[in-house]
Amino acid sequence: MAAISSGQGPIDWQDKVTAKRRQQQESIPSDWTIDSAVIDGLTNVLEVPVTCALLTSKEIEITSADVPVLLHNIAQGIWTSVQVTTAFCKRAVIAHQLTNCLTEVYIDDALKRAAELDDYLKQHGTVVGPLHGLPVSLKDQFCIKGREATMGYVSWIGKLAKDDAGVVKLLIENGAVLYVKTNVPQTLMWGETFNNVFGRTLNPHNTNCTSGGSTGGEGALIALRGSVLGVGTDIAGSIRIPSHYNGVYGFKPSSHRVPTFGMVNSLDGQDSIATSAGPLASSVSGLKVFMQTILSSRPWTVDPSLIRKPWDEEAYGLADHGRGDTLCFGILWEDGHLKPHPPISRALLMAKRALEQAGHKVIDWVPLQHRELNTNAVSGFIFIPPQYVLFKLNTDSSELSRGADPSEIPPFRQPRQPLSAFELWQLHKERRELRQAYFDHWNGTKNVTGTGRPVDAIIAPVMPYTSLPHGSTGPATYTLVFSTLDCPSLVVPVTKVDPAVDVKAAPHQFSGDDDEALYNIYDPELLAGLPVGLQVVGQRHEEEAILAMGAILDDALKQL
Amino acid sequence: MAAISSGQGPIDWQDKVTAKRRQQQESIPSDWTIDSAVIDGLTNVLEVPVTCALLTSKEIEITSADVPVLLHNIAQGIWTSVQVTTAFCKRAVIAHQLTNCLTEVYIDDALKRAAELDDYLKQHGTVVGPLHGLPVSLKDQFCIKGREATMGYVSWIGKLAKDDAGVVKLLIENGAVLYVKTNVPQTLMWGETFNNVFGRTLNPHNTNCTSGGSTGGEGALIALRGSVLGVGTDIAGSIRIPSHYNGVYGFKPSSHRVPTFGMVNSLDGQDSIATSAGPLASSVSGLKVFMQTILSSRPWTVDPSLIRKPWDEEAYGLADHGRGDTLCFGILWEDGHLKPHPPISRALLMAKRALEQAGHKVIDWVPLQHRELNTNAVSGFIFIPPQYVLFKLNTDSSELSRGADPSEIPPFRQPRQPLSAFELWQLHKERRELRQAYFDHWNGTKNVTGTGRPVDAIIAPVMPYTSLPHGSTGPATYTLVFSTLDCPSLVVPVTKVDPAVDVKAAPHQFSGDDDEALYNIYDPELLAGLPVGLQVVGQRHEEEAILAMGAILDDALKQL
Repeated sequence: MAAISSGQGPIDWQDKVTAKRRQQQESIPSDWTIDSAVIDGLTNVLEVPVTCALLTSKEIEITSADVPVLLHNIAQGIWTSVQVTTAFCKRAVIAHQLTNCLTEVYIDDALKRAAELDDYLKQHGTVVGPLHGLPVSLKDQFCIKGREATMGYVSWIGKLAKDDAGVVKLLIENGAVLYVKTNVPQTLMWGETFNNVFGRTLNPHNTNCTSGGSTGGEGALIALRGSVLGVGTDIAGSIRIPSHYNGVYGFKPSSHRVPTFGMVNSLDGQDSIATSAGPLASSVSGLKVFMQTILSSRPWTVDPSLIRKPWDEEAYGLADHGRGDTLCFGILWEDGHLKPHPPISRALLMAKRALEQAGHKVIDWVPLQHRELNTNAVSGFIFIPPQYVLFKLNTDSSELSRGADPSEIPPFRQPRQPLSAFELWQLHKERRELRQAYFDHWNGTKNVTGTGRPVDAIIAPVMPYTSLPHGSTGPATYTLVFSTLDCPSLVVPVTKVDPAVDVKAAPHQFSGDDDEALYNIYDPELLAGLPVGLQVVGQRHEEEAILAMGAILDDALKQL
Repeated sequence: MAAISSGQGPIDWQDKVTAKRRQQQESIPSDWTIDSAVIDGLTNVLEVPVTCALLTSKEIEITSADVPVLLHNIAQGIWTSVQVTTAFCKRAVIAHQLTNCLTEVYIDDALKRAAELDDYLKQHGTVVGPLHGLPVSLKDQFCIKGREATMGYVSWIGKLAKDDAGVVKLLIENGAVLYVKTNVPQTLMWGETFNNVFGRTLNPHNTNCTSGGSTGGEGALIALRGSVLGVGTDIAGSIRIPSHYNGVYGFKPSSHRVPTFGMVNSLDGQDSIATSAGPLASSVSGLKVFMQTILSSRPWTVDPSLIRKPWDEEAYGLADHGRGDTLCFGILWEDGHLKPHPPISRALLMAKRALEQAGHKVIDWVPLQHRELNTNAVSGFIFIPPQYVLFKLNTDSSELSRGADPSEIPPFRQPRQPLSAFELWQLHKERRELRQAYFDHWNGTKNVTGTGRPVDAIIAPVMPYTSLPHGSTGPATYTLVFSTLDCPSLVVPVTKVDPAVDVKAAPHQFSGDDDEALYNIYDPELLAGLPVGLQVVGQRHEEEAILAMGAILDDALKQL
């Protein structure tokens, strides 16, 4: 077993993990422990927060409320922030016991902050900002001054952040209460959540299945309403996949609209596809509150890599989309590479029916060079040569494989030929041509939509499958393609796997081995009840419009 | 002598050049030739277009008019576009004979287009767009379908563009007339204009001195009013240096606001510092017309790499700068590395006096890590390994050195160690920290300006010297630093070298050998009459505000 050197001489890495987990355990009040009998034999644990008898009915009411209701009730003095924060802290701790979704827990700090906000409101009769008193959860990456952000690396345990991340500064400025951080996969570059420090995060819909990644802790936490608004990051699908897998709402903005400065990351300096920070929430309105608040706070002053483009109410009113009167959506049924599983295709059909019923037009979206766009991205940015990771870890060469099941080390965490800057430039050049062709293709649809405009938004699968048993997640080509195009994408939960209708289809003409393997893995009984979400994708920097169109799809689905 | 293979067997490269120059000569009416007696012995040729007797007084009136006047008079039918285009074609051809500033010349096409626009106006009583009938010159890089864009490479002669560049599409859509393209240095990565195909472009203020680069052809052409509005590109100073050297106005926007798609370039795929396209003009209002027109034309539809951020009239009205009432400018007197020559320092003093006289505040700008920002940029992007250039040329390994005076091959065109993608990422990471520190420093000035805002704009030298005799141009650290920061920068002409006042100072404490060499090169008699411009620099994406503040400085200087 490998040893890590520290000031006190070599310490076994597992001792460091044990100490870290004990510290986590000690940050949680012991009387918030679930009676193990309540969960015995359960794989779907969604109802446990309500049935476990730890929450009062008031706390259940609070944690069941939507973000605007919570903000309104706090601002009106109907609920105090201390009440709300207590309720969410308790429910988050319950969620953690069910899915192992948390990393850092700051209950005392959160309650102190909530009390200060309550005092402020009482004293001044006004809120400090639009998020006044609302608990907001954070993916482990976002640094809080003086706190850890280990990102699941043993060698980062004990390293304290020197400053708040940009997004943390804006959340605090706008009145949010920070209370928990959530789990991630090692390196972040994986669609499941597992690392050597905190272990694995489970899917509350089926604990035998993955919560997804890399924002997997948030996905599980929000599904259990241990949070109604959290912040994640997405470079290839890391907000969208957990949203889809856990049946919550998620939004990946275009890059450079929400601050990413001051967070820890895996690929610092890799600018070919920039990490987007964005919200996960229990509703579209939760996503909108976050985006509107951040974009209205001059976020470029805390992160100068951002575009100086404030929240645009006109764009949210769909000024560029006929004010939303008759929209035309394009549905991506499949990408010509991986054929989606039956529940995904059914969700697309539901979206089509719902939108048509709401008076909108729906046409087929013809994918253009999705495989080339994905290959370009994977060649250029999902590129973690060992020397890079070791540079970051700086202590121990075995961190990457240690502890993990070797079958769960994805190919991109294994050694790769280093890329030269020259080769990277060739990929950028190719990508620019691919993007240009894609948007020309998109803008060219104005000749077929009948609205005089190009397709207003694309409705697409998030993944061609739902959450799967731990360790089975494959490539994220349906999300990555829209990262390569830098499009905003909002995930709306649509349905759940129903073995009665989502029967396995007869084999189709497989596009390749991966398509065949995907077909074979589908088992409706095994996946029963797992959620299905869909992406609503807009053109670059159309964040506001996609928030509006995401709400239109969500409302339409609720009318079905 | 090296040979180039072609379909017809080997042809000497100089034969190709001779043929290309003959083709250029044939595109110019022979009765537009200047009598050589008119220019004999002249080094300042600025007045020759007026004195050479080729232009009618009406043509002199037209070519002396400012952009808004031209547009107004054409739109009102006072002047036809054919009249205006003829005048500028003639004057451009005169300018070319004086400075060798043109590459491609399309007089027949331009007059045909002008006639069509005149017909349109007559028939519809309205203009096709805000640039209706105005001749706009283009740096050689911007492709016009079916035309050459050799960028001075012998091996690109005869290669015809497949499509119009994005900016060309928008210019045409908005009514501009394209008539000439202008000269550039080989590789573009040099502050002087010389290549093996078209030779050297001279400075019309002193033909012994350089017109600058890389947009050197535009600089000379606009100084002679062979154009009042041209389009250039800038990655390290390539719009700003020729503006300063030739006494014209220039504007480098932040990257990704003006289309660069569909132009030829030297560093395709190099995204670390993206090329900015922007205007050079005979007035700030010319710059503004271009920017407002392009940004109001949904430029992201022709180039999806652009930010979706249309022209913002509120920002132009200085909404973020107290509506322009009492601005606070910061003056960068020197960067701590290269001490500016006396006329540059005097120009800064004039700016200070002018702004104070106009009721604004002026404080000293304290530079932060300019040397580190420049080193970072040079390490990361001015990086043309031979294999990259050869990849582009694809024919002849000797193109780069051939013909050029070896002393004029700048270091960055000589072989360099290839950089790995990993090393590039480390530079990006460092740059992000440097940028963050710089903007924190900038935003921190709100505590000292007395306006409640940070410094509204920085006034800085363009170069620490004026145009110099051919072959003497050194590093462009005063411009590059604001490229690394991705700030908009507008160049305003301020004064000219006056040996009576710009006397050589006593030696100062030199910061290094380059500072000492710069001191030694200053000779007020040699440089007498050369123009001095200054940069007005804003924060990222403040294009509209900087156009407004550039006009404020320009107006204030005119009141001195």
